[in-house]
Amino acid sequence: MKRTFLFAAAIMFAVLLNLSAADAQQVGAGGKQSKQEMKTITAIRAVLEAQTAAWNRGDIEGFMDGYARSKATVFVSGKTLTHGWQTVLDRYKKNYDTREKMGTLAFSDLVIKVVGSDAAHVIGRWQLTREKDAPHGRFTLIFRRIEGNWRIVHDHTSSAS
Amino acid sequence: MKRTFLFAAAIMFAVLLNLSAADAQQVGAGGKQSKQEMKTITAIRAVLEAQTAAWNRGDIEGFMDGYARSKATVFVSGKTLTHGWQTVLDRYKKNYDTREKMGTLAFSDLVIKVVGSDAAHVIGRWQLTREKDAPHGRFTLIFRRIEGNWRIVHDHTSSAS
Repeated sequence: MKRTFLFAAAIMFAVLLNLSAADAQQVGAGGKQSKQEMKTITAIRAVLEAQTAAWNRGDIEGFMDGYARSKATVFVSGKTLTHGWQTVLDRYKKNYDTREKMGTLAFSDLVIKVVGSDAAHVIGRWQLTREKDAPHGRFTLIFRRIEGNWRIVHDHTSSAS
Repeated sequence: MKRTFLFAAAIMFAVLLNLSAADAQQVGAGGKQSKQEMKTITAIRAVLEAQTAAWNRGDIEGFMDGYARSKATVFVSGKTLTHGWQTVLDRYKKNYDTREKMGTLAFSDLVIKVVGSDAAHVIGRWQLTREKDAPHGRFTLIFRRIEGNWRIVHDHTSSAS
């Protein structure tokens, strides 16, 4: 009886240890943050704020400053994968060719996880406020630090259906 | 005249340098791969293959082995964010409660980028082949190495509309 109890307790303990190790690894920026992580989070927030500010003054090129100017930059939406900074810019310009379509962009519920000294990812909500509708959804962004600047290298955006 | 030309050439050169540095940083697993990166890519492919194999024998719990067993595990789809391994499992079980709904799952066009010794991300296509339809789309997966095992900590999945 006593042995069974000890065995069960040992398993419980092992499971708990396992869980907390996994959680700790993933919480990353969510838990205790180092000064370096705080700096990264501040820098990434600034990029996202500059993006919405640019969008809301009708400046798509300014908005695109948040993305890495690279052929490897990736934008995923629905079933479509768009490759390369210029192609992503062209896509935005085509889909949002008037100020009415652009509306007012807001990001919220940002969760920034720092993966290392030059990588981080972000989950967030996006919402466009327009005269006739209010499309919204979620995004996952992968940021890399490129020559000292945090830039989006990968954006997966989805919409409420 | 000569000075203007030199100035223009210097700017061109600076732009080219900038681009190639950005590309090199992002290509990562896409370009020259170290042995360690190759090992990571092989391990991640094995996780994804085990996932589709589990799905295709109707084993959702087996499929869920690919995800980190953590409260921090995240699944994003449309406008919805699901938090925690157990909640993601419950969601799959609810949405795919018959073998017919599960159909046959295939992943393709996988691009695996290694970010460091314990982080990587993956873009891919998913397709379900079912009797009456064939839903499909793209996913972005963020993998972390947790106690030696590569597991999905973040899944953003979108569908063709």
